[in-house]
Amino acid sequence: MSVITLVTDFGTRDWFVGAMKGAMLRIAPRVTIVDINHEVPAGNIAAGAFALAASYSYFPKGTVHVIVVDPGVGSSRKALAIETTNYIFVGPDNGVLSLALRREKITAIHSLENRNYHAEQVSRTFHGRDVFAPVAAYLAQGTAIAKLGRRLNKLVMLKWPEMRKERAVVKGEIVYFDHFGNAITNINEAAFTTATEKSWEVYISHGRRCKLEQFYQIVRTGQPLGIIGSTGFLEIAVNGGSAKRVLNLKIGTVVTVRPSRKAGSLKR
Amino acid sequence: MSVITLVTDFGTRDWFVGAMKGAMLRIAPRVTIVDINHEVPAGNIAAGAFALAASYSYFPKGTVHVIVVDPGVGSSRKALAIETTNYIFVGPDNGVLSLALRREKITAIHSLENRNYHAEQVSRTFHGRDVFAPVAAYLAQGTAIAKLGRRLNKLVMLKWPEMRKERAVVKGEIVYFDHFGNAITNINEAAFTTATEKSWEVYISHGRRCKLEQFYQIVRTGQPLGIIGSTGFLEIAVNGGSAKRVLNLKIGTVVTVRPSRKAGSLKR
Amino acid sequence: MSVITLVTDFGTRDWFVGAMKGAMLRIAPRVTIVDINHEVPAGNIAAGAFALAASYSYFPKGTVHVIVVDPGVGSSRKALAIETTNYIFVGPDNGVLSLALRREKITAIHSLENRNYHAEQVSRTFHGRDVFAPVAAYLAQGTAIAKLGRRLNKLVMLKWPEMRKERAVVKGEIVYFDHFGNAITNINEAAFTTATEKSWEVYISHGRRCKLEQFYQIVRTGQPLGIIGSTGFLEIAVNGGSAKRVLNLKIGTVVTVRPSRKAGSLKR
Repeated sequence: MSVITLVTDFGTRDWFVGAMKGAMLRIAPRVTIVDINHEVPAGNIAAGAFALAASYSYFPKGTVHVIVVDPGVGSSRKALAIETTNYIFVGPDNGVLSLALRREKITAIHSLENRNYHAEQVSRTFHGRDVFAPVAAYLAQGTAIAKLGRRLNKLVMLKWPEMRKERAVVKGEIVYFDHFGNAITNINEAAFTTATEKSWEVYISHGRRCKLEQFYQIVRTGQPLGIIGSTGFLEIAVNGGSAKRVLNLKIGTVVTVRPSRKAGSLKR
Repeated sequence: MSVITLVTDFGTRDWFVGAMKGAMLRIAPRVTIVDINHEVPAGNIAAGAFALAASYSYFPKGTVHVIVVDPGVGSSRKALAIETTNYIFVGPDNGVLSLALRREKITAIHSLENRNYHAEQVSRTFHGRDVFAPVAAYLAQGTAIAKLGRRLNKLVMLKWPEMRKERAVVKGEIVYFDHFGNAITNINEAAFTTATEKSWEVYISHGRRCKLEQFYQIVRTGQPLGIIGSTGFLEIAVNGGSAKRVLNLKIGTVVTVRPSRKAGSLKR
Repeated sequence: MSVITLVTDFGTRDWFVGAMKGAMLRIAPRVTIVDINHEVPAGNIAAGAFALAASYSYFPKGTVHVIVVDPGVGSSRKALAIETTNYIFVGPDNGVLSLALRREKITAIHSLENRNYHAEQVSRTFHGRDVFAPVAAYLAQGTAIAKLGRRLNKLVMLKWPEMRKERAVVKGEIVYFDHFGNAITNINEAAFTTATEKSWEVYISHGRRCKLEQFYQIVRTGQPLGIIGSTGFLEIAVNGGSAKRVLNLKIGTVVTVRPSRKAGSLKR
């Protein structure tokens, strides 16, 4: 039984996701469909790309991952299916797939042009239902990716901020806020694990700072901390609260990490 | 493997939908349950009816569609199962089923009176869990609809505004706002496809107007357009924004469509 | 085919629930996963416990119920799997499981210590994905609970307010607000069914009162009523509105129920 996952910005208060699932079940009645997230902010390609990159690798090999954050629907933007050694990815060619693919070995990229694998009538505004859903269902059923359309050799890449490291000092920025108000940065744990320091301080703009800790409740309720989050990136959190609100953080806020000076070496 | 779909106004922040699914799985452990939408505004029969009408036909033949928007639960309103040539519909008899049924050929309407197909204890306020869920599960398992209760020959019909057409001018109104703030009207594409005109202008109250276009990004960000949406109805949209907010639209706002006057024929 | 249910405070606007499902499907590809509720207010153990207690018993025997409302994740709080005569429960040992278990006969409690049943790498902040999801999947596949870790003989119990009854007068309080704004109290229907009175009055603080009725629409739109809700507890509702908002109710607001004085016995 194959798995199809969905990331979209369709929300859950209309029928869009339901109609996509109906379209998939007509073609692949035994597929298991898993919602990853339908609350990507409307048209926010970076947020959608991050959600997919943070979750796709936890699914069984062979899973078909569909992402529809598609402000250019109906225009000349391409639609893609991309096969890697582990998964198949389906979505518009606007960068939303590219973040997940940075860690995958791509074996084929195809343009979704063959109308035999689309709905009979394709609407102008809902390729999620009329193109991406049927294509994903056919792929989950075992249809060869090469049948879907012309082979391509590249895709649109999302411009993504990279952390910078100078000796032991790492500089990055906030790239995502989760439901709890935790601020996820682009500073990954490799920045820490390869260093010999045991203790780190996290500096946020406007002179605020906190320590890198092992779990939330090590600081008092309402106090901030840095923590390596479940995505492998440094997060700024507040125990029992929203770091976004409490610290008034924004996407792009600069975050710097430095080794703690040992108390014994402090001089005045 | 049969499919049951759900449209409700239960929201997803309690356990109501989960309890319905549990009740269904106890009877039909292999059924595939698909959420269409649980965010119908509380008690809003028209919005629920529209969501079901916009999505039911994308599901496999034989799907059991359940809708529970039921402000009269526990009162004397009837509960129904309705068989058409393609699907089975289950819900309260308050009009919420009627919009989807306008395009279906009804073969049987039955009142849900036979308590053998309900929960052992039926609560006063949650027929979703205690009546509609078990009935849907039995139907998905192949129980004949006639066993559920007395045959009826009519159902409550929703009063629904119809578009009016006078020669090439079509007049309708806004009937639904989706998650993106697109305003869906009751003007269907047949109003355009049967006409010889190639270019149309959409007039919204207070002298505002826009053109009927093929995709969102053909206009500049923040600009309005008319577009035939994925439901087959004319929608007012704003590229990259919410038409509802930007244009201050409401349910019932009048929308008129006229052929564009050709530039050459304009006289002053 | 076994069923796993999920109650969490992860929300649905990130990828957390999706990643948990991926982790489960890798181990148990044929399991049916049902979302009960991911909108438990962040870290609100009482609300999560109530949602689970209100819904778990509607699922098939053998269902594995997972609840992750876990502000102490990464600290020394225990993680548990608890077997009863009907179900298996999985979650942190912070009281969130205890309300559901009050009506269940516990046969075994085990601490989730055996890392063979966790993810290869366990993050500090997301035991939902790395501990609870894989453990639930193994249990759904038939793994014996004793393999998961050391046997325990108790769990953390939630402090829960109990109703008090003095002759025919029952005193309780509001313990939960649902999506519709109905106020669920801790006064259960047994308080009424064992009494001989036929008619009851519900007193809310500040001298407000309403009658215990059989369904919402028996009172006029906007008017309050008491009703035995679908959980078996007394609820304060407003026909067509939100009792929480209309009556300005809060968690902990005192509610008293008394038999109605018969009109005939009123003396002035």
